[in-house]
Amino acid sequence: MSRPAPLSGFPELLPRQRIVEQRVIEQLSRTFELHGFASISTRAVEPLDQLLRKGETSKEVYVLRRLQAEEGDSSDSGLGLHFDLTVPLARYVLENAGKLQFPFRRYQIQPCWRGERPQDGRFREFWQADIDVVNRDDLPGHYEVELPLVIGDALRSLPIPAMRMHVNNRKLSQGFFRGVGLSDPMAAVRIIDKIGKIGPNGVSKLLTETLSATDAQIKLCLELAAITTEDQSFVDRVQALGVVDPMLDEGLAELSAVVGAAAVDAPGLVVADLSIARGLDYYTGTVYETFMTGYERLGSVCSGGRYDNLASDGKNRFPGVGLSIGVSRILVPLLNQNVLSASREVPTCVLVALPDTESRRDCDRIARSLRSRGIAAEVAPAAQKYGKQIRFAERRGIPYVWFPGEADQPGEVRDIRSGDQVGADVDTWTPPESDLRPTVG
Amino acid sequence: MSRPAPLSGFPELLPRQRIVEQRVIEQLSRTFELHGFASISTRAVEPLDQLLRKGETSKEVYVLRRLQAEEGDSSDSGLGLHFDLTVPLARYVLENAGKLQFPFRRYQIQPCWRGERPQDGRFREFWQADIDVVNRDDLPGHYEVELPLVIGDALRSLPIPAMRMHVNNRKLSQGFFRGVGLSDPMAAVRIIDKIGKIGPNGVSKLLTETLSATDAQIKLCLELAAITTEDQSFVDRVQALGVVDPMLDEGLAELSAVVGAAAVDAPGLVVADLSIARGLDYYTGTVYETFMTGYERLGSVCSGGRYDNLASDGKNRFPGVGLSIGVSRILVPLLNQNVLSASREVPTCVLVALPDTESRRDCDRIARSLRSRGIAAEVAPAAQKYGKQIRFAERRGIPYVWFPGEADQPGEVRDIRSGDQVGADVDTWTPPESDLRPTVG
Repeated sequence: MSRPAPLSGFPELLPRQRIVEQRVIEQLSRTFELHGFASISTRAVEPLDQLLRKGETSKEVYVLRRLQAEEGDSSDSGLGLHFDLTVPLARYVLENAGKLQFPFRRYQIQPCWRGERPQDGRFREFWQADIDVVNRDDLPGHYEVELPLVIGDALRSLPIPAMRMHVNNRKLSQGFFRGVGLSDPMAAVRIIDKIGKIGPNGVSKLLTETLSATDAQIKLCLELAAITTEDQSFVDRVQALGVVDPMLDEGLAELSAVVGAAAVDAPGLVVADLSIARGLDYYTGTVYETFMTGYERLGSVCSGGRYDNLASDGKNRFPGVGLSIGVSRILVPLLNQNVLSASREVPTCVLVALPDTESRRDCDRIARSLRSRGIAAEVAPAAQKYGKQIRFAERRGIPYVWFPGEADQPGEVRDIRSGDQVGADVDTWTPPESDLRPTVG
Repeated sequence: MSRPAPLSGFPELLPRQRIVEQRVIEQLSRTFELHGFASISTRAVEPLDQLLRKGETSKEVYVLRRLQAEEGDSSDSGLGLHFDLTVPLARYVLENAGKLQFPFRRYQIQPCWRGERPQDGRFREFWQADIDVVNRDDLPGHYEVELPLVIGDALRSLPIPAMRMHVNNRKLSQGFFRGVGLSDPMAAVRIIDKIGKIGPNGVSKLLTETLSATDAQIKLCLELAAITTEDQSFVDRVQALGVVDPMLDEGLAELSAVVGAAAVDAPGLVVADLSIARGLDYYTGTVYETFMTGYERLGSVCSGGRYDNLASDGKNRFPGVGLSIGVSRILVPLLNQNVLSASREVPTCVLVALPDTESRRDCDRIARSLRSRGIAAEVAPAAQKYGKQIRFAERRGIPYVWFPGEADQPGEVRDIRSGDQVGADVDTWTPPESDLRPTVG
């Protein structure tokens, strides 16, 4: 076949880039586990009726069919690839509710698929890293405070630009819009959500047309949406607007707890931003959106919120709160611009040089001895001149070349970056910790 | 929605089982990296024409379509889910040949999909762990010796039953059948491949019907297929059959190198089994099949071989040798029979008990201090009676509960397995290494 072309929207990485992705996934998993989140991995497919429950996303779903499915064989028709990790979580929780311990803290790092038109930061196949806490019946509000701090820990551990998480609360918005006297507070939330795209004038127009809002009502809504504070002072600013509603008070208290805790535990991470709404109907409390400094054009790279009705089987209700990191959305642009890279393109730390073809088994034993002490090693593919074998290592970024000694003599090891070459015992020589694995940055 | 039912052929794991799978994947990656294999991850989809090149598998492919694809929009039609990791590797190598270093040592651990009828050990979605070495133009034979040893290292590191790898060589079989005088040696390979299913009588019949083989020829073929040795003595036994062919000699030498090296480096792993053929046409040298002791009914759980024509772009040829571990085929039965399990179902090592609701932020600080030293910790969800909080830990298998001290007093930590409770300083207390993460076995 001729040389294949990449598929638009399905980003793939070269080995050196993949090392960065691996390290990021490893570090995210590590942080989530330190916080007691258990991993699950769900199948790639869900029944179509589950995937289409939200309506809005229906056009993006990839549907499956067996190439040679016989007429009338419906055993795996009606399946589609999941477009997020929330629908699978809801289904998994319902399916296994009797076998899970609640509150259920889970993380999940998997690819998702959407048939979207590919563009900067938007892909047809992309990795997400989700954390959620799901409970039966009720979910205490302290999880809405905790989850952004876990995400803060996770993102801070990565070699990526600083993140800024914008937080709001649905009760605050809906309570305020109700207190203002708007007929459909939820519709107002959806309109305010567009403020980034259509601006205050566009929002005014929509509020008038859709909700017959008065100028005074519109003024209050826009004043609310303009409030952004790094501390709890947003509470005073909202109260100064003079709108009164019990749900508004609840929302203010909840958002205040989130912002207050974050200001202490993760200074600079969280900002109260009362324009944040998130379009989806199912959020019922705190909502989160996160932007990467210098890459705001990518949109939110980590979003989520509290949903009181993630799943219900009629008897039991399962409320939850979750956040989803857009791993591909963050990494692919950084990797393509070489902002992020790895120090080598192979895990190998030591290339064992091959003096002659007959010595291969001896060289294998040297490599095995290094591996037994956790040092990644491979033997040169052919007994070429040593200069060529050194270049083999250089091209891959392998830091050390081991030269076997003759007969029972000890060998020598060369740091090919400095050219330093020293005698070395294969049973004791150890590279610096920082050379053991490729470094990422 | 009502409680959803599992989808046949799409196995999913509970959190405790998932810990085993995670650990297995981690350990396989670790071993492959110690041997200098670089990870790649390819997209889930390939163009249909690539997937159907092998003909035989066409009926198993899942084809994708966008639910709301417009008439005439073919931007992502003609895509299917990959059914193995070899077709994607061939495409990746051709697509990126100019950016890869050869010989290219890569590993890849991902799900694959086949629309097969689900049965014991056969799934519609399943994980595979592949290693391959691919070179440009030519591939030295020593990689056929090396790869089964890498797999041996990888499988030995897992808490699973012992493995037995049956090895043969296509040149040996084809050369022998040619030396015997059969008209179509490759057809004979495919017939001998069925011996496990249809027995020697079935094979005799097929050889007669398909290749007009004489009784003397059939006798020699069956004698060859009956040869199984743990050492290189198969060479003498083949030569005693008196068949002469230069390709046969090449095959004998190559297989002898594989079996000889394995007998030294991985005693008991490899057996020369001259009945092994592997049906697929593209193997050209060593072929491997692996069976798990006590689970032979699952069929081969790790197969592969050398292929001289994995990929070609007209100008360059890319020969390779690879082996594929059936991760799901091995793990799902062992997990479902509880042969394999994890010591707890959460990563959490310490549950910080909550004396009262007001203490949550203090307890958060205790948990954070533990995490900063690599100890996974979470705070109890509610300020229930301590007995209830201890049961919360017990149900999940969390080994330690931390009781915060009053005011500035140090706390106490209880090993809930033994009931031992001791005073402890949050900045220095450390559990035994073996309790830090769930153990698997």
